[in-house]
Amino acid sequence: MITGGLGFIGSNLAHRLVTMGAAVTLADNLMPQYGGNLHNIEGISDRVDVSVSDIRDTDALTTLVRGQDYIFNLAGQSSHMDSMRDPFTDLEINCHAQLSLLEICREHNPEATIVFASTRQIYGKPERLPVNENHLLRPVDVNGVNKMAGEWYHILYNNVYGIRGCALRLTNTIGPRMRVKDARQTFLGVWIRLLVEGKPFEVWGGEQVRDFTYVDDAVDAFLLAAANDEANGKVFNIGGERPVTLRELAELLVDVNNGGEYEVKTFPADRKRIDIGDYYADDNKIRKALKWTSRVSLREALQRTLAYYRKHLAHYL
Amino acid sequence: MITGGLGFIGSNLAHRLVTMGAAVTLADNLMPQYGGNLHNIEGISDRVDVSVSDIRDTDALTTLVRGQDYIFNLAGQSSHMDSMRDPFTDLEINCHAQLSLLEICREHNPEATIVFASTRQIYGKPERLPVNENHLLRPVDVNGVNKMAGEWYHILYNNVYGIRGCALRLTNTIGPRMRVKDARQTFLGVWIRLLVEGKPFEVWGGEQVRDFTYVDDAVDAFLLAAANDEANGKVFNIGGERPVTLRELAELLVDVNNGGEYEVKTFPADRKRIDIGDYYADDNKIRKALKWTSRVSLREALQRTLAYYRKHLAHYL
Repeated sequence: MITGGLGFIGSNLAHRLVTMGAAVTLADNLMPQYGGNLHNIEGISDRVDVSVSDIRDTDALTTLVRGQDYIFNLAGQSSHMDSMRDPFTDLEINCHAQLSLLEICREHNPEATIVFASTRQIYGKPERLPVNENHLLRPVDVNGVNKMAGEWYHILYNNVYGIRGCALRLTNTIGPRMRVKDARQTFLGVWIRLLVEGKPFEVWGGEQVRDFTYVDDAVDAFLLAAANDEANGKVFNIGGERPVTLRELAELLVDVNNGGEYEVKTFPADRKRIDIGDYYADDNKIRKALKWTSRVSLREALQRTLAYYRKHLAHYL
Repeated sequence: MITGGLGFIGSNLAHRLVTMGAAVTLADNLMPQYGGNLHNIEGISDRVDVSVSDIRDTDALTTLVRGQDYIFNLAGQSSHMDSMRDPFTDLEINCHAQLSLLEICREHNPEATIVFASTRQIYGKPERLPVNENHLLRPVDVNGVNKMAGEWYHILYNNVYGIRGCALRLTNTIGPRMRVKDARQTFLGVWIRLLVEGKPFEVWGGEQVRDFTYVDDAVDAFLLAAANDEANGKVFNIGGERPVTLRELAELLVDVNNGGEYEVKTFPADRKRIDIGDYYADDNKIRKALKWTSRVSLREALQRTLAYYRKHLAHYL
């Protein structure tokens, strides 16, 4: 089962699992402000079970959890700004529902293995770079606090109850099927949409350093974490090929696109105060423990993403 | 205002504030499983406003929060075992209600200063001793996860919205007005009750190392943290005179009591799996930043506590 299975990373994982011959159930609430999109399962829709249900619905979740071998737990509210405007909804989804899922597993399916999609956001503003898993967690927004709690429920249910689980701390993940309608998942979605539409995009700031994971590499990490008992009870950073400034990223994107324009703007105040500054991951822990590696270069990642949206943009607006 | 104001530390703080001439409001739900006890304000009950209300009741909280200069936020579910048996109640109190309090402050009283009662439990099993504030947070029970989130809401509302706040990570706090009915606050409560009743008490394990703060010293820390803008946005460990093993503590207690018996037992399995092993705090950060110091020795702390319960035990059963 994949929670958030119609979303960006969840659906890419579903495509991979289907090609591997797995019986896949996707749970997704398909609410417009989140990442779920039925187009994301085009080509596999007849080979997966889809349940349009919310992770906050414990009855639905109880039915779904029974009998699953692996639960890829990607359902979440991921917008930092939304978490500040509506902190209680973020809490319901990122804390309460996560605890529900674990309690349901404990009661109805203690044999399941759960891989939780965590986020680099929980580190807050890094005090050193690159950031490894020994960096303190000092979240700067409500989303970061709640994801931190959600992650630790998984770790403790592994340690206390033996519900096998681990967490992947994702950075900006990019690729086909990402949300491009707005910046709720990543600003890069908006850049790509505008570029495909032939419009200029905005770079806020420009000097911030970030790393990017291509979604297929993220999918690899989820599969390795699920299949390997070495991962149980652990947290792993997932990074990418190399860190770049947003301005370099914009240049690379325009280059890959063979054209396009962008404008550098100052950071809006309400975003600035929850911004984390520079970030890039030290992901040696997962490279060593699970033999994960990032296989797709940033250039290639941007190329493939642009190619996808040139073809499918209409389904993502 | 003191949330959890009829509880152990809250009521000791109330006594101090009343002697300092402050106008004090105490909010407490007085639910039997928590620490609230009307006897705790004997002697000052005509000089404080008491609101029997729950921190989960946002309407009541909104009324209470308006106009307060300082909010000492001590309302919480503190039993580790209860948090495992009923994780959702722990979440409601230690996460949701904390976020509510902060949202209410943001809307109705952004000038308030909040001091949050956090706990050493959020560190989990220490990887080095003594534990300073740079130690990773790796909670081992639901209570620890939720208190970690509750603490960080306070820090981020300070940093993002300027709602002045800080957190004190308390260790075992002891003294008059502590809960002695059961081990929900600390095992030491039960030891003291049994000793005063002339019955043998049980020491589980015995070799675990712990530190203890006398409640008057904890009250000092709350007042210093509230009065000093240096504290805003920070977390501080509070420790005590010196670490001791539980067996040494038992010996000291029997010595101070001029008699008494105890039995060393093996740790029950359900507690063992959420036990944190040895812990004692490095509290130099608050000693330097706020000039806090622990003034009451462990022997003196036990003496005063025993003296209190010899006189008042009936009100705590």
